[in-house]
Amino acid sequence: MAQDKSGKGFVIWIIGLASAGKSTLARLVEQRLLNGGHPAVLLEPSSGEELKRRLMPDLGFDRDGKIQITRRLGYVARLITQCGGVAVVPWITPEREPLEEVRREIGRFVEVYVRCPLDICKERDHRGIYVRAETEGHPVPGVTEPFEPPVNPEVAVDSTRQTPEEEVSVIMERLKALGYLDS
Amino acid sequence: MAQDKSGKGFVIWIIGLASAGKSTLARLVEQRLLNGGHPAVLLEPSSGEELKRRLMPDLGFDRDGKIQITRRLGYVARLITQCGGVAVVPWITPEREPLEEVRREIGRFVEVYVRCPLDICKERDHRGIYVRAETEGHPVPGVTEPFEPPVNPEVAVDSTRQTPEEEVSVIMERLKALGYLDS
Repeated sequence: MAQDKSGKGFVIWIIGLASAGKSTLARLVEQRLLNGGHPAVLLEPSSGEELKRRLMPDLGFDRDGKIQITRRLGYVARLITQCGGVAVVPWITPEREPLEEVRREIGRFVEVYVRCPLDICKERDHRGIYVRAETEGHPVPGVTEPFEPPVNPEVAVDSTRQTPEEEVSVIMERLKALGYLDS
Repeated sequence: MAQDKSGKGFVIWIIGLASAGKSTLARLVEQRLLNGGHPAVLLEPSSGEELKRRLMPDLGFDRDGKIQITRRLGYVARLITQCGGVAVVPWITPEREPLEEVRREIGRFVEVYVRCPLDICKERDHRGIYVRAETEGHPVPGVTEPFEPPVNPEVAVDSTRQTPEEEVSVIMERLKALGYLDS
């Protein structure tokens, strides 16, 4: 595949446990970028989202399914960067290896880790995932499956100490410092 | 999904029988657009292409598979337009209905019909598809399955009378006339 000719495209990949606050943050980041005139596209693969239904109806949320979701998302994100867009990807991303492949392929890649302790995530449980882990044995990273947090993310935020707006500001400053956005 | 905020993205969807000359033309169109500074991305779903393997490994080339390929391609093309890119899509597109859905969703959509008589396509048979239709009963639009040609395409070219370079020129002129490119 041809590389991004404009050299402006990049990926903001937002990682964290279920209910850590990835989705809210991703939407704010997308909006902030659009307001600044940057061509951002949200790629959200959660259950019920259009992207999940239309691009990956064959993939489940078991461990292997999540690995395939990471890879397929990575490919779509690369297409977005190829035409100078910014792909904003909120995805739990429980395993490192498929993400490292995606990073290497894309190159211009910003990993954002949304820290939040598991017990707080369980209290929030926005999608009822933790309840279903207990009642139905639903596979959940950090509970019934591994969750490998980012080792050296470009940005780390903490959703128990920062508001989403504060998190966005940290990310935007970091994007400028890294040269992805003009300061 | 949010609409393209830049208003510049659009889709060039190239339709025709197998071996009509869609792929060659699509590559030239992509290159011409890139040379002109337009953020073009080629989305080619043929067997063996990376896009097919990575975005739609679950879809076959039977009749239903091809309908699903049209829909999934359309969704990815929409994401490309959403960040101001130009998606160039060479795809046989044997049935109208799924394409009409895609057109309606995207709006900024240019259908290119590459005309070529079936007997010439069979002589060329670049991918050996027509041979396999006879020897293996491989499903092929226009032979073992329906092929519904475009009724009112924005552009029609004829690969038996025009060189690919001439076809590209016709398309570029039409894109200017339709207001998709500055003249």
